[in-house]
Amino acid sequence: MRGMMMDSPLQIISLLQFAARYHGDSEIVSRTVEGPIHRYTYRDAYARSGRLANALKRLGVVDGDRIATVAWNGYRHFELYFGISGMGAVLHTINPRLPPDQFGYIVNHAEDRFIFLDLTFVPLLEAMAPALEGVAGYVIMTDAAHMPETKLANAMCYETLLEAESDSFDWPALDENTASSLCYTSGTTGKPKGALYSHRTTLLHTLGVNSAEGLATTSQDTVLPAVPMFHVNAWGIPYACAMTGAKLVLPGAGYAGDAMYEMLDSEAVTMSAGVPTIWFMLLEYLRTAGKTLTHLESVIVGGSAAPLSMIRAFEEDHEVTVFHAWGMTEMSPVGTFGRLNKRMLALPKEEQWNQKLKQGRAFYGVDLKIVDDDGNALPHDGEAFGELLVRGPWIIGGYYKDPEATAAAFDDAGWFRTGDVAKIDTEGYMQIVDRSKDVIKSGGEWISSIDLENVAVGHPGVAEAAVIGVAHAKWGERPLLIILPTQDAKPSAKEILDYLNGKVANWWLPDDVAFVDELPHTATGKVSKLTLRQQFKDYRLPEA
Amino acid sequence: MRGMMMDSPLQIISLLQFAARYHGDSEIVSRTVEGPIHRYTYRDAYARSGRLANALKRLGVVDGDRIATVAWNGYRHFELYFGISGMGAVLHTINPRLPPDQFGYIVNHAEDRFIFLDLTFVPLLEAMAPALEGVAGYVIMTDAAHMPETKLANAMCYETLLEAESDSFDWPALDENTASSLCYTSGTTGKPKGALYSHRTTLLHTLGVNSAEGLATTSQDTVLPAVPMFHVNAWGIPYACAMTGAKLVLPGAGYAGDAMYEMLDSEAVTMSAGVPTIWFMLLEYLRTAGKTLTHLESVIVGGSAAPLSMIRAFEEDHEVTVFHAWGMTEMSPVGTFGRLNKRMLALPKEEQWNQKLKQGRAFYGVDLKIVDDDGNALPHDGEAFGELLVRGPWIIGGYYKDPEATAAAFDDAGWFRTGDVAKIDTEGYMQIVDRSKDVIKSGGEWISSIDLENVAVGHPGVAEAAVIGVAHAKWGERPLLIILPTQDAKPSAKEILDYLNGKVANWWLPDDVAFVDELPHTATGKVSKLTLRQQFKDYRLPEA
Repeated sequence: MRGMMMDSPLQIISLLQFAARYHGDSEIVSRTVEGPIHRYTYRDAYARSGRLANALKRLGVVDGDRIATVAWNGYRHFELYFGISGMGAVLHTINPRLPPDQFGYIVNHAEDRFIFLDLTFVPLLEAMAPALEGVAGYVIMTDAAHMPETKLANAMCYETLLEAESDSFDWPALDENTASSLCYTSGTTGKPKGALYSHRTTLLHTLGVNSAEGLATTSQDTVLPAVPMFHVNAWGIPYACAMTGAKLVLPGAGYAGDAMYEMLDSEAVTMSAGVPTIWFMLLEYLRTAGKTLTHLESVIVGGSAAPLSMIRAFEEDHEVTVFHAWGMTEMSPVGTFGRLNKRMLALPKEEQWNQKLKQGRAFYGVDLKIVDDDGNALPHDGEAFGELLVRGPWIIGGYYKDPEATAAAFDDAGWFRTGDVAKIDTEGYMQIVDRSKDVIKSGGEWISSIDLENVAVGHPGVAEAAVIGVAHAKWGERPLLIILPTQDAKPSAKEILDYLNGKVANWWLPDDVAFVDELPHTATGKVSKLTLRQQFKDYRLPEA
Repeated sequence: MRGMMMDSPLQIISLLQFAARYHGDSEIVSRTVEGPIHRYTYRDAYARSGRLANALKRLGVVDGDRIATVAWNGYRHFELYFGISGMGAVLHTINPRLPPDQFGYIVNHAEDRFIFLDLTFVPLLEAMAPALEGVAGYVIMTDAAHMPETKLANAMCYETLLEAESDSFDWPALDENTASSLCYTSGTTGKPKGALYSHRTTLLHTLGVNSAEGLATTSQDTVLPAVPMFHVNAWGIPYACAMTGAKLVLPGAGYAGDAMYEMLDSEAVTMSAGVPTIWFMLLEYLRTAGKTLTHLESVIVGGSAAPLSMIRAFEEDHEVTVFHAWGMTEMSPVGTFGRLNKRMLALPKEEQWNQKLKQGRAFYGVDLKIVDDDGNALPHDGEAFGELLVRGPWIIGGYYKDPEATAAAFDDAGWFRTGDVAKIDTEGYMQIVDRSKDVIKSGGEWISSIDLENVAVGHPGVAEAAVIGVAHAKWGERPLLIILPTQDAKPSAKEILDYLNGKVANWWLPDDVAFVDELPHTATGKVSKLTLRQQFKDYRLPEA
């Protein structure tokens, strides 16, 4: 027997319709790539999304067409989030920092029909265009006054396109399983893989993220997503803010400490979210400039782990609460959120911070399991660690046009393999121990490269640290610690190993320490262990 | 093109599975009808829901069977919420306060196969049983030691049923549109009408209610639903608490001031929800006993409007934040929630309280419109009022086995007619002006009976007030104010009218005042205007 409820498919455009109708005066403030600050309201954004959808229709865009964006965080990008998905096409956000071969692969694999780009990316696209096969035109996200000379074929001006259209668009009633948006993983190994979200899963993710146990935006908040909108829908924040009418502050390309401070301060931002690198820059700026942020209440850290020093600096020096969040492109992306529970909130601050180092707790909608090499579930005891698998309504069921990657991504019960190694404590808090390809397998036991790195960076002479496994005759693999020293510091290998001694299990102690002048990074800013393993592939450990 | 996401239908049992897995030690505390306080955890509740599902299967219950409950708020009722829906049957909660004819109609109309009842309701069911046509058996929600002698045919003991079963039940993967639960409206006019919810709509309602803009339970909360679990799923609170692992306190049948105080205090409850009558009793108890509630942070008031005096008493005397919520059985039930927005929070307390008198703001998932007599949408300007219509994923699409009621319940565009008359302000806050059948239509204009009543109860000599429309030769209908005086007070009609004068529009002033010794109430505790209109059907207004 079926329930007798209203037929009400979940639709992305309904978020913006809600915001326009019930929070119509709430603002969206953008730092434009042209220079000035731009401000308008959700009501305006909805009207212009209608114009955009009319323009797309006129350009011949039909249901399911992939429309790419190469753009910073700004109001036009926000309109594309809603206008493209809302009219039935697929929003494909592209990371402009990708290596050219990956960029080209992604556009061609997605078969993007149009590419919308910020002014700043005209040179990039001009260079890429000859390799892009099916692109029918390029829309430059600026007004007529700022339109550049360009050799891009069929280049159009965003504002000129919109000017010709009406605000009113007859948004189609889409099946909620219709594809809405497409994001490719950065692909540190192999070719990039596409996650193809639907309207339904985006809405469920937004509801989940806005629960009081998650990000929990409200109409009282002012939110600055410091994660680019070309990364997994900016962690879902543009949708989350529309759902509650929170004021949204889009910082353009300005993520340096001074630029972030200016936006956070002048717009009285209460909540922000981004990767640790952003927060390092901001904290350093605040420290040297002797400033603080009186309105900022919370900062969400994801992408990679926040160190204890960062959590302490925010909470002690600036009275800003830090929440760790964890997720993946394949997870829409949020999977865990680091709100402390009742027991933890009664602990001394030091213990709370230790708890906050974990990646957070599963919230309703995401189920986690950790398994051993044979796929057997391991206990949630805070000790056992194994490969982390996830399932739930906003997790991918396969990769776009990639049966091979899809076949490798799920276990027999249909859970998605995250590629992370993690432990989960009795209260459901998950801690990433390592990437499964980075964990060091020594004599049948696992050593966490991340744990070793986290301890090593505590040494004052260490600016950045990376641990990789190196072949070892007896143990199979043993850890090598690679260090970028702080400026002017010249720590010795012995000094570092002495520092580690007692802080990690004895058999985890690296067999050697190497010093480098710089560490290789991926397009998303993480240390590239792949490159490191190539650089050190002939390295021989002292005892081996 | 479809998104490529995991197939993950929304299921009610997944809420309890989540709670058992990630908040397994979180408590459910119940005052039992047998007497003692009972405590166990979500982990225990899940295990026993499995036993219950096994027992239902053994009793021959199959997909879609309606299984009724007649019970107070307790842990066994909680298990029935999840066990019945989870195994594919339909949970049908019945209000034991209904008049016998309605009680019988509902059981027969729903074709309930089994009825689960608290000990306290054995006499009620014994009296009703001869009229109940298809009921195959009665399960008394107690243990063997407390089993009464009963003439109920095929009476079984709940605990004996569960003892024979295993914790482990193979929960079926249900289509998310499968019917999960059935609630009948109290039916002040005509026969009761059934709202048949689905797993999907219950889950979406729970996600919506738990958003930071709604009820927003968290794992840090202790929640006491002071609304009976036989009323619209106790406003969704048992589901909402499972979704976040909040500690749940179920007060049994104890809603008197002292009983409520005892549970709120001893269990350190942070959040509670119920109708104004409950809060009147609690506030009166606190006042006379000279007590306060140190843990209680917020109280949600719904069912009927909270007066200003109640909001003030909670906020000024007890530092408890009051939120108005509004909804209907047909809405799962929550439709609006009274959190103030940023602008309002900066207002003086007095102005905040005035705003809190409104029924609250639409939150994402519910869309509201007000229309005039011809069905034309009226503006959201805080002035215009008209019939309130709603739509969204957790609103009914029809009444169970009742095509006639269904035909009358929706407008041409498929919006549900709430039967309320309301206005909506520019910020989306809705205020009920009247029930559409109670509004007084005077010379083509509408007079709100509720507004008049709210002003009248401000007079110290008025305990309760009701306004009905009485036929009038010239104006069609004019208001008659009916008053139950406070003990020993003997206000005159003139005194009351003088009091109203200047507080309402001149043409709203009642044409007469009648005094009564008691006012008739419905099964849900509201003044029965239907009965009043019958009592006063021959009443002639002075000037008519």
